[in-house]
Amino acid sequence: MLEELKQKVLEANLSLVEYKLVLFTWGNVSAIDREKGLVVIKPSGVDYATMTADDMVVMSLDGEKVEGRLNPSSDTPTHLELYRSFPDIGGIAHTHSTFAVAFAQAAKDIRPYGTTHADFAYGPVPCTRDLTGDEIKNDYELNTGKVIAECFAERGIDPASVPAVLVHSHGPFTWGKSAAEAAKNSAILEEVAKMAYLSETLGANEASKNIRNKHYFRKHGANAYYGQK
Amino acid sequence: MLEELKQKVLEANLSLVEYKLVLFTWGNVSAIDREKGLVVIKPSGVDYATMTADDMVVMSLDGEKVEGRLNPSSDTPTHLELYRSFPDIGGIAHTHSTFAVAFAQAAKDIRPYGTTHADFAYGPVPCTRDLTGDEIKNDYELNTGKVIAECFAERGIDPASVPAVLVHSHGPFTWGKSAAEAAKNSAILEEVAKMAYLSETLGANEASKNIRNKHYFRKHGANAYYGQK
Amino acid sequence: MLEELKQKVLEANLSLVEYKLVLFTWGNVSAIDREKGLVVIKPSGVDYATMTADDMVVMSLDGEKVEGRLNPSSDTPTHLELYRSFPDIGGIAHTHSTFAVAFAQAAKDIRPYGTTHADFAYGPVPCTRDLTGDEIKNDYELNTGKVIAECFAERGIDPASVPAVLVHSHGPFTWGKSAAEAAKNSAILEEVAKMAYLSETLGANEASKNIRNKHYFRKHGANAYYGQK
Amino acid sequence: MLEELKQKVLEANLSLVEYKLVLFTWGNVSAIDREKGLVVIKPSGVDYATMTADDMVVMSLDGEKVEGRLNPSSDTPTHLELYRSFPDIGGIAHTHSTFAVAFAQAAKDIRPYGTTHADFAYGPVPCTRDLTGDEIKNDYELNTGKVIAECFAERGIDPASVPAVLVHSHGPFTWGKSAAEAAKNSAILEEVAKMAYLSETLGANEASKNIRNKHYFRKHGANAYYGQK
Repeated sequence: MLEELKQKVLEANLSLVEYKLVLFTWGNVSAIDREKGLVVIKPSGVDYATMTADDMVVMSLDGEKVEGRLNPSSDTPTHLELYRSFPDIGGIAHTHSTFAVAFAQAAKDIRPYGTTHADFAYGPVPCTRDLTGDEIKNDYELNTGKVIAECFAERGIDPASVPAVLVHSHGPFTWGKSAAEAAKNSAILEEVAKMAYLSETLGANEASKNIRNKHYFRKHGANAYYGQK
Repeated sequence: MLEELKQKVLEANLSLVEYKLVLFTWGNVSAIDREKGLVVIKPSGVDYATMTADDMVVMSLDGEKVEGRLNPSSDTPTHLELYRSFPDIGGIAHTHSTFAVAFAQAAKDIRPYGTTHADFAYGPVPCTRDLTGDEIKNDYELNTGKVIAECFAERGIDPASVPAVLVHSHGPFTWGKSAAEAAKNSAILEEVAKMAYLSETLGANEASKNIRNKHYFRKHGANAYYGQK
Repeated sequence: MLEELKQKVLEANLSLVEYKLVLFTWGNVSAIDREKGLVVIKPSGVDYATMTADDMVVMSLDGEKVEGRLNPSSDTPTHLELYRSFPDIGGIAHTHSTFAVAFAQAAKDIRPYGTTHADFAYGPVPCTRDLTGDEIKNDYELNTGKVIAECFAERGIDPASVPAVLVHSHGPFTWGKSAAEAAKNSAILEEVAKMAYLSETLGANEASKNIRNKHYFRKHGANAYYGQK
Repeated sequence: MLEELKQKVLEANLSLVEYKLVLFTWGNVSAIDREKGLVVIKPSGVDYATMTADDMVVMSLDGEKVEGRLNPSSDTPTHLELYRSFPDIGGIAHTHSTFAVAFAQAAKDIRPYGTTHADFAYGPVPCTRDLTGDEIKNDYELNTGKVIAECFAERGIDPASVPAVLVHSHGPFTWGKSAAEAAKNSAILEEVAKMAYLSETLGANEASKNIRNKHYFRKHGANAYYGQK
């Protein structure tokens, strides 16, 4: 089932390697078929070099394995919670990319220092609060998803305009319309994080709201004029 | 029309990828045919891997599309303004290369810390002022070009001796006699910016004017003796 | 003798090059055959590009060369001491990887700033004390091993749960069940060290013990649920 | 003439590219035939991709071109002065490698923070004083060589035990018994400089003299036991 989506999820997972975002088996990408309510995700701890579309695991939105010989990524409950909380997203990627992790470990938002950031996200990429001991002990991966959703809800951030989050002490999750876009957003986030690191250590301030709005909306707004029709 | 120039502009755009200065479709290079008053520029948001010379867009110096199926780079009005303001340049490149962007986001000049810088540019690579809200709202890309020209005029910098600028909160533009030279200058600028970042965090001071003049003029002056005749 | 183990040790040494952890002939990996009490180790100062399984040197656990045309790695007495002190390990790797060396030179533990670290090691990766003048003058490489063992004993660290150490002013040693795992742990340590460097310069605090335990035990504990059975 | 040496000098120059130490035509390597008193050096500003052994230029030790169609590297007088001042060296390399340049621009020695440094050099890699205005105006490249020699003489450093220097506001020169060894030392210096940068920003102190001596002499001393006979 979902052979085409499995192939796309495989390719998006492999693109993480191409983007140099993952070491060994770290990282995972999933996609959802919204009509069927089914999620396709990378298996846990499998070597990228030998992974095939057939190794992808199909899950129901409420966490039942529907198809697959292998265990799904241990981060699967986080993915599922994000698909439930953010009903418009189609794909999710999780990496431990170096600079994004550094901000997550420092428990800091990635602040919008310039137009590269504004081309990608409207406002800071938020860092969640730390999970409580209870949230960690029971249903840790599910609660990771809940804390992400809570962060966006409490801060009034639209996941369509900020396609990325940093989980406190952990690392980034990114999303998009598809698995491919989610993975691509992981690559952009890492570059934006590296620029932010260098900018902070040079003493930068945030870019003006005017220029950030301009760049965000010329690329993403109703009157966007970046790219081709 | 301008098939040869289109090929050169294509190759210069592809050289940005080779120099590892761009992620995805970021960055753009153009060149001008001064006799005809026509500018050839990369289309907006097109994948480098599939781009052909035929995809290049021909613009008049005052901003009319003269030939091309695709939309020109959204930064086209900046390029055109620079060709109008700096009448001796033949090519322009724009990237979001990491270290140059960091200085732009920190709103800092790249100061001349050593001979690598002096081989490239005579004096600091300036960072422009921030654009005003009005300059951003109306004709943003045109005004970006105007603010660059204003920066060079007000600070008395000759664009022939400093072939690069940092746009505040944004990133670098570089130029040269040709598209190829403009792209090459983007690569040099990024290396110079990285060295400056490391030097500043080690507490460096600017190199002496004597040694900077020596290096600049042995390479670029009337009595230059670097390279072959 | 031990032809299969020699091949594995060769491959693990070559993996250091693939992981981009070594320059020239730096670094060495060994493995032990516990039943026979014999250690196979890389020869000293031999080019990775031309090295063969036949070049590997076989040593007894008490330091006698049992087979091999070449001198063993000058760090051999350190390896042997670690095999004697840590009876459960099967392979050891030593590199001068950049960020791990930086922490060793700064005489600092790599503190557990996040889940990437916790997936790898339970608690900080310790940095040993400096060797005394006497320990350096006589049997330096042996004493390096003894100081590592002392560090783990005094701080009550289990080498099974922290498969790495930083030797003061020197660099990292890592270990594992096999030569391949030891080399892989060198790659993970370097990435963890880079993340720690960036996190410290951003002002990070250690991750909570709760989240560190969760990540360590979901991957390494009796009830681990990461990966496949 | 000197066809074999030309080939070796060509290969050493190309190794700088392989070691990722140079951008474009930056950097140069030379070697000396001590019996004939002739130096072979890279031509100035020639593309590495098309350079042949035949392009190498032969100079006499006192600065006369003996053979070659092309201009020698503009840094030739520096090389010649170093061959005259350091009579035991056989090859010289000059690069603008990033981290070594950063220390040169910050006018700081590379201090011996650990054993990677001690394996390479006995004591700090010194940074010269700044050249005076007069030294820059007249015979700049010759005076660069003289200031290097002065630095080693005044500080009592033996060029055989410290095969590298940083020229103030400029960058590194390295040397060795051959062109190949000089180039290799440039690669090691860059790695040592990167480690020193990271170590300094982590607050490191110099390694103890005991451990530095141990590492230097186990590799370079009369009783060296690193490598094969």
